[in-house]
Amino acid sequence: MSHSKPDPARRNEHSRRAILAAAISLISELGYDRVSIEAIAKRAGVGKQTIYRWWPSKGAVALEALGESLATVTDFPDSGDIVEDLRTQMKGVTQLLGSTDVGRVYQGLLAAAQCDPALSRAHLEQIIEPATVAGHARIARAQDRGELRADADPQEIIDLLYGAIYYRLLLHTRPLAPEQIDAALDIAFSGLR
Amino acid sequence: MSHSKPDPARRNEHSRRAILAAAISLISELGYDRVSIEAIAKRAGVGKQTIYRWWPSKGAVALEALGESLATVTDFPDSGDIVEDLRTQMKGVTQLLGSTDVGRVYQGLLAAAQCDPALSRAHLEQIIEPATVAGHARIARAQDRGELRADADPQEIIDLLYGAIYYRLLLHTRPLAPEQIDAALDIAFSGLR
Repeated sequence: MSHSKPDPARRNEHSRRAILAAAISLISELGYDRVSIEAIAKRAGVGKQTIYRWWPSKGAVALEALGESLATVTDFPDSGDIVEDLRTQMKGVTQLLGSTDVGRVYQGLLAAAQCDPALSRAHLEQIIEPATVAGHARIARAQDRGELRADADPQEIIDLLYGAIYYRLLLHTRPLAPEQIDAALDIAFSGLR
Repeated sequence: MSHSKPDPARRNEHSRRAILAAAISLISELGYDRVSIEAIAKRAGVGKQTIYRWWPSKGAVALEALGESLATVTDFPDSGDIVEDLRTQMKGVTQLLGSTDVGRVYQGLLAAAQCDPALSRAHLEQIIEPATVAGHARIARAQDRGELRADADPQEIIDLLYGAIYYRLLLHTRPLAPEQIDAALDIAFSGLR
């Protein structure tokens, strides 16, 4: 199964937005496994061939819907204070993923990705890598300015800080909450000693 | 669907071990979704009614198999050095989850748990909570001894450190590796400033 992005030039923007919104609301209501392309088409008011012409699978639709939601919060500001900028970005991500609709879409997608390597790769390419590249750049700039240790690997910093977000999203230990970001940044920047 | 533990007194230990081993090897080979109770019974050399008598679902079998594997590595030593003790425990967990068979079982279970609240709760009760209680106790002892900041919440420390393990397990960004534990502990204890 391919999850590559379709040619956007061929797509009608109004239908595209209706399809992505229908995917998010249906998955949120019924759960990822119980939603079909047919149901998404019906709610969006399009024919199912319209969806199949633009996306190869339900996973690809869900991934694009999730990516568009996340794009509203994943930019890293640069105020000159790395901790405050990470706090702003991470609280935005946490608030979005803590909302029932987007959170359930992401849970369903990552569940499906565990036994669908193509979907897992598409998730990395479309969601994780762009955010990671932006995070690396922001952290490296802070390192150049002497705001944090130059010997710390930006990727390990990202794994640690964002791991705590995915931990709650996927293990369901506690609801995602903005306070967890304050605690994570305090530990990571001030250290436990 | 209930995922509560069955009465162990009713179970034959030899069959129980054969069933858990069959569940791990089959899920590792075929993926969680493609394994049935019937297939587990066949490989274990028992009747499928034997499995249904002891476990209410495939998820319950997989959870018990995972729990027994993890029990070999989740104890927290107490050498008097909290960082070295966390390093020992976390590297043990990482090595086990980085192995193909146990890692795939855990990925499959957590995928299934995203749309099965009873399985998610059983995972928390049988896997996460016992390990978390032990981790809390070990961290609190280190706080009493002045080895780490008394104002840091042990649960936030656990979310941060173990989040980085689940991040790689479930997002498939990079394979789980012992070096990530060194990096995570260095950031968390020495801090990024």
